[in-house]
Amino acid sequence: MHRIIIDCDPGHDDMAAILLAAWHPSIQLEAITAVCGNAPLHHTTNNALRIVDAFGLDVPVYAGAELPLLHRYAFPAEFHGPSGLDSAGEELPPARSKAQPQHAVDAIIERVEAAPGEITLVVVGPMTNIALALALRPGLAQKIKQVIFMGGSAGEGNVTAAAEFNIWADAEAARMVFRSGVKLVMFGLNVTHQTLMRREDVAQIRAARAGSNPVADIMDFYCGTYYSFAGADKPGAPMHDPCAVAYLIDPSIFELTAYPGEVLVGADGGYGQTLIDLRPQDPAHDQRVKNVTVAMKADPQRFAALVTQALSWAAGRISSTK
Amino acid sequence: MHRIIIDCDPGHDDMAAILLAAWHPSIQLEAITAVCGNAPLHHTTNNALRIVDAFGLDVPVYAGAELPLLHRYAFPAEFHGPSGLDSAGEELPPARSKAQPQHAVDAIIERVEAAPGEITLVVVGPMTNIALALALRPGLAQKIKQVIFMGGSAGEGNVTAAAEFNIWADAEAARMVFRSGVKLVMFGLNVTHQTLMRREDVAQIRAARAGSNPVADIMDFYCGTYYSFAGADKPGAPMHDPCAVAYLIDPSIFELTAYPGEVLVGADGGYGQTLIDLRPQDPAHDQRVKNVTVAMKADPQRFAALVTQALSWAAGRISSTK
Amino acid sequence: MHRIIIDCDPGHDDMAAILLAAWHPSIQLEAITAVCGNAPLHHTTNNALRIVDAFGLDVPVYAGAELPLLHRYAFPAEFHGPSGLDSAGEELPPARSKAQPQHAVDAIIERVEAAPGEITLVVVGPMTNIALALALRPGLAQKIKQVIFMGGSAGEGNVTAAAEFNIWADAEAARMVFRSGVKLVMFGLNVTHQTLMRREDVAQIRAARAGSNPVADIMDFYCGTYYSFAGADKPGAPMHDPCAVAYLIDPSIFELTAYPGEVLVGADGGYGQTLIDLRPQDPAHDQRVKNVTVAMKADPQRFAALVTQALSWAAGRISSTK
Amino acid sequence: MHRIIIDCDPGHDDMAAILLAAWHPSIQLEAITAVCGNAPLHHTTNNALRIVDAFGLDVPVYAGAELPLLHRYAFPAEFHGPSGLDSAGEELPPARSKAQPQHAVDAIIERVEAAPGEITLVVVGPMTNIALALALRPGLAQKIKQVIFMGGSAGEGNVTAAAEFNIWADAEAARMVFRSGVKLVMFGLNVTHQTLMRREDVAQIRAARAGSNPVADIMDFYCGTYYSFAGADKPGAPMHDPCAVAYLIDPSIFELTAYPGEVLVGADGGYGQTLIDLRPQDPAHDQRVKNVTVAMKADPQRFAALVTQALSWAAGRISSTK
Repeated sequence: MHRIIIDCDPGHDDMAAILLAAWHPSIQLEAITAVCGNAPLHHTTNNALRIVDAFGLDVPVYAGAELPLLHRYAFPAEFHGPSGLDSAGEELPPARSKAQPQHAVDAIIERVEAAPGEITLVVVGPMTNIALALALRPGLAQKIKQVIFMGGSAGEGNVTAAAEFNIWADAEAARMVFRSGVKLVMFGLNVTHQTLMRREDVAQIRAARAGSNPVADIMDFYCGTYYSFAGADKPGAPMHDPCAVAYLIDPSIFELTAYPGEVLVGADGGYGQTLIDLRPQDPAHDQRVKNVTVAMKADPQRFAALVTQALSWAAGRISSTK
Repeated sequence: MHRIIIDCDPGHDDMAAILLAAWHPSIQLEAITAVCGNAPLHHTTNNALRIVDAFGLDVPVYAGAELPLLHRYAFPAEFHGPSGLDSAGEELPPARSKAQPQHAVDAIIERVEAAPGEITLVVVGPMTNIALALALRPGLAQKIKQVIFMGGSAGEGNVTAAAEFNIWADAEAARMVFRSGVKLVMFGLNVTHQTLMRREDVAQIRAARAGSNPVADIMDFYCGTYYSFAGADKPGAPMHDPCAVAYLIDPSIFELTAYPGEVLVGADGGYGQTLIDLRPQDPAHDQRVKNVTVAMKADPQRFAALVTQALSWAAGRISSTK
Repeated sequence: MHRIIIDCDPGHDDMAAILLAAWHPSIQLEAITAVCGNAPLHHTTNNALRIVDAFGLDVPVYAGAELPLLHRYAFPAEFHGPSGLDSAGEELPPARSKAQPQHAVDAIIERVEAAPGEITLVVVGPMTNIALALALRPGLAQKIKQVIFMGGSAGEGNVTAAAEFNIWADAEAARMVFRSGVKLVMFGLNVTHQTLMRREDVAQIRAARAGSNPVADIMDFYCGTYYSFAGADKPGAPMHDPCAVAYLIDPSIFELTAYPGEVLVGADGGYGQTLIDLRPQDPAHDQRVKNVTVAMKADPQRFAALVTQALSWAAGRISSTK
Repeated sequence: MHRIIIDCDPGHDDMAAILLAAWHPSIQLEAITAVCGNAPLHHTTNNALRIVDAFGLDVPVYAGAELPLLHRYAFPAEFHGPSGLDSAGEELPPARSKAQPQHAVDAIIERVEAAPGEITLVVVGPMTNIALALALRPGLAQKIKQVIFMGGSAGEGNVTAAAEFNIWADAEAARMVFRSGVKLVMFGLNVTHQTLMRREDVAQIRAARAGSNPVADIMDFYCGTYYSFAGADKPGAPMHDPCAVAYLIDPSIFELTAYPGEVLVGADGGYGQTLIDLRPQDPAHDQRVKNVTVAMKADPQRFAALVTQALSWAAGRISSTK
């Protein structure tokens, strides 16, 4: 049983990651912490609550950092819509429940301190919350079981040539986490561009529920914005965030290698790049620490099967929105 | 009555700042928060406790950030000694009391939230604690009455050509504070090189107590390391940190001007510089925000009189160390 | 007798520097090399030719670098006008002569190689030409007698809070020159804000010639744009570039001190800053090289007298423009 | 017929590039320009002369930049030996001829100006010479037929995680060239790690000449240092520099794609990285200029056959060294 906290900025693929965790019996989702990222914090917190309510999940939601440490940017409404979780058809109903009064950063600290070595952090938004927790309690790096994150790339970027959005949104925070000594497992664009939500997957999710189907509608929005940007000939849209959860459920879906990794923060064009040191290491003389285990390859079929099953389950589980 | 929290890394001049605040009736010193800076956190926290105990101050002490956000450096033992508060003769006795269980950052947040607009933060170490508090609660910037800090310079640096130690020790934190919108009053090297502890001041402090005199001994250590570095012909050693408290007691000691200010964080030689925009502003067209009020000039005589009185009072107050 | 080459981007104060050099018997002005700076190269070259022609100077003019090494910026037409040498009344006549076919960089190399240790470079524009000459021939650093330059600041900037225009326009070039080992004498904003063209100086220049007086008209344009920016209450406009020539004529006008100096090139706000290390040096242990001798103070009266005499001479010398 | 200048820092693979160009009838090698890179300029110039003399090539050699624009580094003697062209057995004989008196940068300018649109620059060392030529004559960018260079990477680095040696050695120069508008064809590590000198290739070269065989000995040195670093199980050592020439001889050996490209120069870990923007471009809206055509894939067999033929020819051609 994997005890996890999901730190996220839902976000369409964040929703898929949450639902994958909620669905699979090997995962115990103990908390959701929201962060500023794809959308402002009040939207991402609200979206987390809408997800928890709509799918009847018994998971506390905490609001975290309102802003990145230093970086300021315009929210990328072109990918997730102004709400951060727009739908091509029916929306999720408004949230009924409320966020916990505790700050997400304090919740992370308290929960990890209460179960040292037990809690996996699944980080699928900018790393602001985690960086703040580690800054307040450097010893936490040894008590967190692992940080599995979606972010960065061992190859091309998306928001810039160098950088993927989650890391770029708060590169200083990411550098703090990379240097903290915490065990890191990375799912970057180099692998998430292999793990797609395909047209047939959305069709299968839609088939899982007669009548209105907000899950399928939301996925349609996400895929639609991707196709309009990347080309309608693409076989599917990248399912970034669920990778981090899928890896917990079935690590054999991915091939991973440990490397030294760093985050660039300079203002000369590389801001937010995860610099993964792919050079062969001379075992006799090399002192570089392989601080990041990086997913380099995925099995797209098995990944898609897993996510589609979870979202089909979720599509059926949703309480009527009317 | 000024309600203040002193955030510090004692530190010889930190001690002088604390004693100045403890001595003067217009100041209500409500808490001392320690941070990693001149010495490791466990030393600076311990030194704060030794000060509180030795001088019988009824002030809670909180331990804060163990490390800067990103910067790592060797502690400058040449200026403060390995303990951070070395003496040329008698030391302060070991601490009898203990730090509060709450984290300094949480204490700052709680105390400011409890009295919005009332609390002045006197920051005389690196800005890590304040930056973390503002990152956790951006709204705090409007609830802190003001941050009066010793750090940076409108001219020359000390630890590098560009940078003063407190800002350089955690330039990313300082940039966060400078950009936060909090009201800032800066006492940088440009003015603290005018506010000296002179030989006659130490003599007066020594005269304040017959027999053993740890306060004078500690000041002798501080001045001695300064003279050995800067030249024995110097009339005195800069009293950096007490400026921030002296300003609260008697603002007329200083001349201040508001400027736009920024902190450099790049790795090309300027790391930790406070870039104060001294250019004349065209009031009709200028959009630059004057976010820092900078002390540009001091009255050295009145400053020295104030600090010497406070330390003489403290020298007499110290409980016997034998 | 000082044998000099003036490397410049005329420019109003560049004209004053050229005329000061042409006027004074202790200076032998052997060449003028133009560079991209205040205005595009074709303008600065043309302006150099107009000056040479209008005042009957027997000095060859060479065109140099068309662009800074890496920096690109909009030309500051607000200070010098679109031509780079606008007038409030009568203009200088169009150039009759032509630039030499040789590139300015090659001319500098050839002339210095022909007289090692003899030639002073007076650099009053961006340092692109000099940097290229030193890059092509690193040994030139030992053969140039000295580089006296107007640029940078030991205090406030002008084009940014940190940076003065000439250095900022090509900071990489300036860093190359600062690191080259060439003997450097710096006249930065910290001193050129003391060396003014005052209202009475312009009046005296105007009185030097009955009827049309392009020299006075050009100075009026320069002072006018400065007053409209900095305030009509200012006693005069800074005469930046002539400082470098005035120092050759009478070094006692200035107080200078040698310091270690560096140029910042990072993109975090400090680009183009001359970082002068003003910290006291411990002679026993300090290894820092004092590579720049920096003018820290000027005698404004004697400076103004010198420049006013030169421009009055020039005003009378100008051939009729009708 | 391709008229080319090879700008290089021989260098083992530089020698292979020169010999490939000298051997193939479709190439007219008009000049060799040396630059500081793998070894100091006096070594690389001398090595170019030794190559020209030993193989009886009728090509003028010019010495260029002694130092990178700003970067300073220790020469990588571990890969090429202190001479820059060490041998595992017999060396090339000492140079008999001398470098031309003209500076390499001037030679490049003069030759390109004399045949606009005709000359291909094959740049297989740091880009200092080319950057200086373009800085002196920006219009040259339109007159150079193309710059085919070995340097950078669309993936991993070698000298750092981010950077390949040639670009890293003078990243400012490389940025100048990348931004100059000149037509660029890039052979980076991502492809040169596919183009190997295999054990069987060296054996074939050795077989081409009975008795002493400096060409084979020199290749043995190069492969030996590579195996000792990267592992004796490797099938061959990367032949970086000959790729640029092989492409001219037979472009079908490579697959190339045009991308926007930039060079990082910041000091935060990315210095010298060629940032190739691999992101898919939206043809309707994208304004990014695809300034670099990047080799992404090679046919290792055909490449090896070409280089082995050339070096076998050269092995036989060498005049007796006794």
